[in-house]
Amino acid sequence: MKTLRVDLGYRSYPIVVGKAVLRRAGKILCRLGFSSPPVIVTNSLVWRTHGAALLASLEGSFGSAAVIGMGDGERFKTHESLLKIYEGLFRAHADRRSWILAFGGGVVGDVAGFAAATFMRGIPYASVPTTLLAQVDSSIGGKVGINVARGKNLIGAFHQPSAVLSDTEILTTLPDRELASGLYEVVKCGAIRSAGLLHYVDRNLSAILDRRSGPLGHVILESSRIKAEVVSGDERENDLRMVLNYGHTVGHALEAATSYRRFKHGEAVAWGMIAAAGFGRELGMLASDDVRLLVRLIHAISDLPSLRGIGLQDLWNALKRDKKFRAGSIRMVLLQRLGATEIVTDVSPSHLKRFLRTFLETGGHVV
Amino acid sequence: MKTLRVDLGYRSYPIVVGKAVLRRAGKILCRLGFSSPPVIVTNSLVWRTHGAALLASLEGSFGSAAVIGMGDGERFKTHESLLKIYEGLFRAHADRRSWILAFGGGVVGDVAGFAAATFMRGIPYASVPTTLLAQVDSSIGGKVGINVARGKNLIGAFHQPSAVLSDTEILTTLPDRELASGLYEVVKCGAIRSAGLLHYVDRNLSAILDRRSGPLGHVILESSRIKAEVVSGDERENDLRMVLNYGHTVGHALEAATSYRRFKHGEAVAWGMIAAAGFGRELGMLASDDVRLLVRLIHAISDLPSLRGIGLQDLWNALKRDKKFRAGSIRMVLLQRLGATEIVTDVSPSHLKRFLRTFLETGGHVV
Repeated sequence: MKTLRVDLGYRSYPIVVGKAVLRRAGKILCRLGFSSPPVIVTNSLVWRTHGAALLASLEGSFGSAAVIGMGDGERFKTHESLLKIYEGLFRAHADRRSWILAFGGGVVGDVAGFAAATFMRGIPYASVPTTLLAQVDSSIGGKVGINVARGKNLIGAFHQPSAVLSDTEILTTLPDRELASGLYEVVKCGAIRSAGLLHYVDRNLSAILDRRSGPLGHVILESSRIKAEVVSGDERENDLRMVLNYGHTVGHALEAATSYRRFKHGEAVAWGMIAAAGFGRELGMLASDDVRLLVRLIHAISDLPSLRGIGLQDLWNALKRDKKFRAGSIRMVLLQRLGATEIVTDVSPSHLKRFLRTFLETGGHVV
Repeated sequence: MKTLRVDLGYRSYPIVVGKAVLRRAGKILCRLGFSSPPVIVTNSLVWRTHGAALLASLEGSFGSAAVIGMGDGERFKTHESLLKIYEGLFRAHADRRSWILAFGGGVVGDVAGFAAATFMRGIPYASVPTTLLAQVDSSIGGKVGINVARGKNLIGAFHQPSAVLSDTEILTTLPDRELASGLYEVVKCGAIRSAGLLHYVDRNLSAILDRRSGPLGHVILESSRIKAEVVSGDERENDLRMVLNYGHTVGHALEAATSYRRFKHGEAVAWGMIAAAGFGRELGMLASDDVRLLVRLIHAISDLPSLRGIGLQDLWNALKRDKKFRAGSIRMVLLQRLGATEIVTDVSPSHLKRFLRTFLETGGHVV
């Protein structure tokens, strides 16, 4: 079990990573200063599989906790779920001294975190993320929120958790595709900040895919450390935090162009990283060997859903709706080499569009 | 025109008070660094009376601004209004660089501020409060939020405005009862922090009730300064900020016990201050002369709606639901003398209840 600290002044918080973190959750949270039972927000699937273990652990330290269930999946990241959580909090007689424990994947974390940000003007929350993606990405950094008809994450807040508890063993029940989806965000962390992490994933891929605790713990800790460092430097997402969006410009557009049905988020980001790497090489920024290693590693993790049938214009229209896409020129995070980024502020739209045409036509071959 | 600064580190902001602030709003906001037109959130009544003046002023500096209307009054401080504002923001093509200008009383400020706190994880907002109550109280301090069926202000956030512009002339169209309601909060500011302000209101009451700009500007500025000082010292409402709740324990309960229909908020707080002063004297904390001055001043401002028919048990039940009311003993802000408070943490519930019985039976006579 290892602990790292996200450094945000008086809102700093620890991330605890390791085996059996779930079973020790009560003790860990108690030691972190929580003294009353939490209100747990979770989804039905996670609760069925791991609820008993969490409850048992919490009961030892806090007595019994109230549980609020919500649906599983992105389509539940809505106002309705949020109102349901508020109602559950009232029913549990929660007040401004209460706290929420988010127990689930990214959707649970985002909605429960937003409920915590806004219930009685803000109560604390802690996260026990149950997917690799949530462990290495969405649970860290304080971005919480919901989707609305107009788009994803358009309503939300910045609200830092009081603690994140990442259990490696909980990932043994995670579906393969979810695990891979999270690994792509690990690859992203390596790509932007640590060639060493990329090489580690490369060397230990089969052990990671076998869900061995040691290597999983290592990549979770390293990715969390990278995300935490970036977030500490720039909590409110200006320039520094933008590097976390590597692969996301095209990734988000691929998700939107396929109505969020074909790709998991991590898979879309994987294609987005391949596109960004290929485009970076075209701009003379990234060496061919680096592109090849990154692309090979991404494809070694799992088979990505194909790009077949995605129209250039649909992709382009989705790109143009992106929050970071400004009229005239495009800001894009690109790699200088594995582990080092550059924010290019004057990407030529026509050049990018030409590149994406070939990218789609070749089914995503850039090397 | 005078400016004072709310000191909150990098989120510090100015409060501008004076004559013709409304007509100069565009220039003032421009000088404060805003460079694009705002999305205005307002209510229909305010907009009909003062919308043209605001628009004219903004147009000179920013070009045309989008306007989102909402209903007038506390019953519009709801989720529905919030969703309507989001929708209006989308329709106006707002993005994370947009900003909101809240133009109205406390309800508009609270809901528009909460929309700003949560739209795309937070965009800036400025306030042009149009009631005395909003100018001296709700627009300062960053508390934003909405009511839900379970109670008032239960969903919300802390989101500091970028500027507050308080025009004294705009109060000439304010109904008498609204003016008085705001003056009670001015009296509260004096009671907790400045005997001088109380004496000033006492000496200049008829000029203030005549809405003369000079005296109005003085009490707005002084009250804003007091609130700003308290808020600067304790942004997130722990002990220091609690002094702002002087008169609110009983005040809130009176509002709730009469289903929010009999009293304006300021009127309920006025009765609450009278009760707290009388109770403080019973505890031997506050001198009779001070109680008398405070009570006389409150009654000189206007006729308060009577306490007739309010049952002790209803009042008591409402008190017990208060967020600050903890099992066993009661925390209450009481005066040591005019201008100085003490937080008494061990108020005896039975003593307070006995006092309130007499208070209700005598129709609120404490001197």
